[in-house]
Amino acid sequence: MARASKSSQLAFHHVGILYHPQLTEARVMAAEILEFLESLGASAWVSSSSDEEAISCRIPAIDLLIVIGGDGSMLRAARITANHDIPILGVNMGHLGFLVEVQPAEWPDLVKQALCGYYWIEQRMVVNAEHWRDDQIINRYEALNEVVISRGQMARVVRLNTYIDGGFLTTYIADGLIVSTATGSTAYALAAGGPILPPELENFLLVPIAPHLSLDRALVLSKGVTVEIQVSTDHIAVLTVDGQIEVELAHDDEIVMRAGPWQAQFLRLREKNYFYQSLMHRLGWPHPKKR
Amino acid sequence: MARASKSSQLAFHHVGILYHPQLTEARVMAAEILEFLESLGASAWVSSSSDEEAISCRIPAIDLLIVIGGDGSMLRAARITANHDIPILGVNMGHLGFLVEVQPAEWPDLVKQALCGYYWIEQRMVVNAEHWRDDQIINRYEALNEVVISRGQMARVVRLNTYIDGGFLTTYIADGLIVSTATGSTAYALAAGGPILPPELENFLLVPIAPHLSLDRALVLSKGVTVEIQVSTDHIAVLTVDGQIEVELAHDDEIVMRAGPWQAQFLRLREKNYFYQSLMHRLGWPHPKKR
Amino acid sequence: MARASKSSQLAFHHVGILYHPQLTEARVMAAEILEFLESLGASAWVSSSSDEEAISCRIPAIDLLIVIGGDGSMLRAARITANHDIPILGVNMGHLGFLVEVQPAEWPDLVKQALCGYYWIEQRMVVNAEHWRDDQIINRYEALNEVVISRGQMARVVRLNTYIDGGFLTTYIADGLIVSTATGSTAYALAAGGPILPPELENFLLVPIAPHLSLDRALVLSKGVTVEIQVSTDHIAVLTVDGQIEVELAHDDEIVMRAGPWQAQFLRLREKNYFYQSLMHRLGWPHPKKR
Amino acid sequence: MARASKSSQLAFHHVGILYHPQLTEARVMAAEILEFLESLGASAWVSSSSDEEAISCRIPAIDLLIVIGGDGSMLRAARITANHDIPILGVNMGHLGFLVEVQPAEWPDLVKQALCGYYWIEQRMVVNAEHWRDDQIINRYEALNEVVISRGQMARVVRLNTYIDGGFLTTYIADGLIVSTATGSTAYALAAGGPILPPELENFLLVPIAPHLSLDRALVLSKGVTVEIQVSTDHIAVLTVDGQIEVELAHDDEIVMRAGPWQAQFLRLREKNYFYQSLMHRLGWPHPKKR
Repeated sequence: MARASKSSQLAFHHVGILYHPQLTEARVMAAEILEFLESLGASAWVSSSSDEEAISCRIPAIDLLIVIGGDGSMLRAARITANHDIPILGVNMGHLGFLVEVQPAEWPDLVKQALCGYYWIEQRMVVNAEHWRDDQIINRYEALNEVVISRGQMARVVRLNTYIDGGFLTTYIADGLIVSTATGSTAYALAAGGPILPPELENFLLVPIAPHLSLDRALVLSKGVTVEIQVSTDHIAVLTVDGQIEVELAHDDEIVMRAGPWQAQFLRLREKNYFYQSLMHRLGWPHPKKR
Repeated sequence: MARASKSSQLAFHHVGILYHPQLTEARVMAAEILEFLESLGASAWVSSSSDEEAISCRIPAIDLLIVIGGDGSMLRAARITANHDIPILGVNMGHLGFLVEVQPAEWPDLVKQALCGYYWIEQRMVVNAEHWRDDQIINRYEALNEVVISRGQMARVVRLNTYIDGGFLTTYIADGLIVSTATGSTAYALAAGGPILPPELENFLLVPIAPHLSLDRALVLSKGVTVEIQVSTDHIAVLTVDGQIEVELAHDDEIVMRAGPWQAQFLRLREKNYFYQSLMHRLGWPHPKKR
Repeated sequence: MARASKSSQLAFHHVGILYHPQLTEARVMAAEILEFLESLGASAWVSSSSDEEAISCRIPAIDLLIVIGGDGSMLRAARITANHDIPILGVNMGHLGFLVEVQPAEWPDLVKQALCGYYWIEQRMVVNAEHWRDDQIINRYEALNEVVISRGQMARVVRLNTYIDGGFLTTYIADGLIVSTATGSTAYALAAGGPILPPELENFLLVPIAPHLSLDRALVLSKGVTVEIQVSTDHIAVLTVDGQIEVELAHDDEIVMRAGPWQAQFLRLREKNYFYQSLMHRLGWPHPKKR
Repeated sequence: MARASKSSQLAFHHVGILYHPQLTEARVMAAEILEFLESLGASAWVSSSSDEEAISCRIPAIDLLIVIGGDGSMLRAARITANHDIPILGVNMGHLGFLVEVQPAEWPDLVKQALCGYYWIEQRMVVNAEHWRDDQIINRYEALNEVVISRGQMARVVRLNTYIDGGFLTTYIADGLIVSTATGSTAYALAAGGPILPPELENFLLVPIAPHLSLDRALVLSKGVTVEIQVSTDHIAVLTVDGQIEVELAHDDEIVMRAGPWQAQFLRLREKNYFYQSLMHRLGWPHPKKR
């Protein structure tokens, strides 16, 4: 009875908990969070985050997904929850993560805070990529960080004829081209020399990897554009989605990218302007002097 | 009579024409355009663009400003027309310009096209910068390209304690910091290694100049933020507005920057997606291959 | 008789001519050069540059190798002539090449000039790379441009523990690391952001590819050092030699690199200080103003 | 008597000690080192390092110069001891220094070690710069780190027509150009994006500062070359020597640079391969993993 009344005041009633399959601590923590949630009156279940099919079936019935792992686990969870409008809360088990919200020791306080309704939802744009061959769509992908079109293992540059809203931009001659979201600007695009964009920006960022006597500057694109890349290569090229899915591309294949129809939802417990405040720490820069 | 009726169909009736004071061709062209405009039934006047005071008085009475010069002349014109909601049309007399619209040989056709109403207006954000000393505002500036805070002539780095919406970001230790608009992303910020932003983006871009073991990445900021920079230097520092106005800064001076209350209005005759189409040409990159 | 006396004054008597196997013009030109050389009194043979085994047997008997192709053909020829102290003369059939010496239209004049003895020999350092696994050498490679140790097709960074003369330098976390010669500084290392070194410099250049929060600066090493790289990866890594040979690397494999025991010999007909003079042209920079 | 015999075994008998004039600790330490040296049997004197004239007179009589300060003090000392073949030993009073050898707490042990002869001398190339106007030499300068030719305070780029051994290289259009030694590659040139060179390399390094659509790559030059830069500017340009001496340059002035006739001599107590070992620490990179 008391429980029911307690439960009725919760912000979330049905919670899925995913843990990184290779980390024992993650599994142990998942069990602890499960128990904690049930003690608060919520229903919950636990699953390895690698078991994507089983999870997919259970997603529609939940109203919060807790992910115990690193940024990789968060990227996977964002794809699994696509279209379901379910917020994701990340508990960090990796190195410094840009997407996770909660440090291991903080979870009891912060999970409780979330269930009590003291949170906000951060929306993040995703990239929708269509893979075309011979005027037919072969497959569709969605990425939260970035889509990369690059050479395969062979050490040959690819030539990427690039069009913005149908207008020719340039031909990148490079190891590859990163088509990144703002979220991805602190991931691979950063390593390739790109600028950092705040997460709410809904503009694509183009960053070439090792450009060879071709455009070597990062380019932020207008909101809402369609980016089309036609691959020109003697060998194979590779399409990589969030560093997790890899697809071989043939000469003349085209990749067409637009902002996705849905947005990833991250549950946030920190201040709204956390991004800049934590950025320097995450980049490993010391704070030389505060006022 | 015929003339009056012709005039009544014009998109612009009162036109100011500014020419670059050091270019004879610009003055000659100004006279030609004046004559042409009058033949179409518009009223017009001509002035050297250096005569800022005289121009200021005449600005309120015009509905179009034609500027014959380079990007520098356009920057100056944008400041002079601030708050007056007057579109500016640039005729190029310089090297490749990013702001000018019309090449010298095209002016008869394109000026006529503009007066017939076949144009669109491109709005560009300006930066508003306040110079504070001892808790008092000393002066205000507006920039279309960028505000730069840098060391003076002495070869000492400045330390720039930088705050976003009141939260500490980092201390840049550098020759200087460029606070650029999207418009400025193809100017000084580009030389300092920054990314290129499309003109309609209303986000500031921070690019350090020769950063010394401090944050060396370009940073795009959220729309609407306030950037505050506190200067720390043994010598003087310098505030530069659009590369045209220079002000000495003392230790502990603060510069507070926000999006300006008005926007520059550029009259455009090209397609709306001209930016990417002409970008590569302006950057000097060959087009390796078109489809 | 006349012929013999002519021949006895030649700088080279036995010439091999290699042509790019996929270019008809190269084969035609090879036949023309053969005829021309014989008319001058030299003996010569022609072969496709892909037929490495056949060529190897014939190399010891020649005193000049003419290569018709691009920089790739020159790299291959440098490896084939290793240890044989035979100068290589490149006739350009590719895009702008950094190693080739003669443009197609110039060959009759310049080949004659070479045979008359008006040339100089440019020596270029090579990298010798040993591939170690479980304390055994698996294989040895020699590169004129660069040795690259990088991730395989999978989009995971590799960790490269790097030692200079046995002392720990750093761990690169990146797509890969380029260990380049001065010759290679205008090839892949340039695309990855490295500096340009003049060809006679006998120092290795280390340039990381897309470094992820690890050392991101190019590093020139002292002459004569040994560079040792220990690979740390979840997947495979790849060793690439001059962009032409690829070898899979396993976790814990080590690559040990030193200056090679021989140097490539390029026959030069231009002035000794040609490098800087032609560099800007090859990089595609216009010459803004000459004195 | 005992003293004389002690003294006769010393590696150095006459020592000058310079302290940073603005640091009380430096002056205190100078006095302590003086006393310590005298107790060992050496003669010594102490002076503020700002008192350049007085020091100059006393330099010829010493065989070791100890400098208490940071890299700036070391640069000044290198210029003062020019041509005198006197080794310099730096005791660090600044932030991380690249030139100083001894940390404050270590001095008693390490100064003793030096006097006992357990040290080696590291030679460092200097740049000799001649300032020409109207075909006359106006002045000569020597730099250990770098010579910089840059715009003055006015925010206008300078155009620098650059020649290597009399051959035209390119025109830099930039805030400035750094002509750096290997020693300077970890100073200003690093901030401007240049590579790191080991200290024994006797090659100049050219690094442009904020290049505007002109050569943007760092360039290592051949050993022994002469670099000539002709200044083209509407305003003034500035020549800066080691960040310490500033000279105004007029339009058409020329700066001619060669390796200096003498080398700076740094007394070293660490291992010969200290450079790479300490580089990462000085750059602020963590050591991710040692073997």
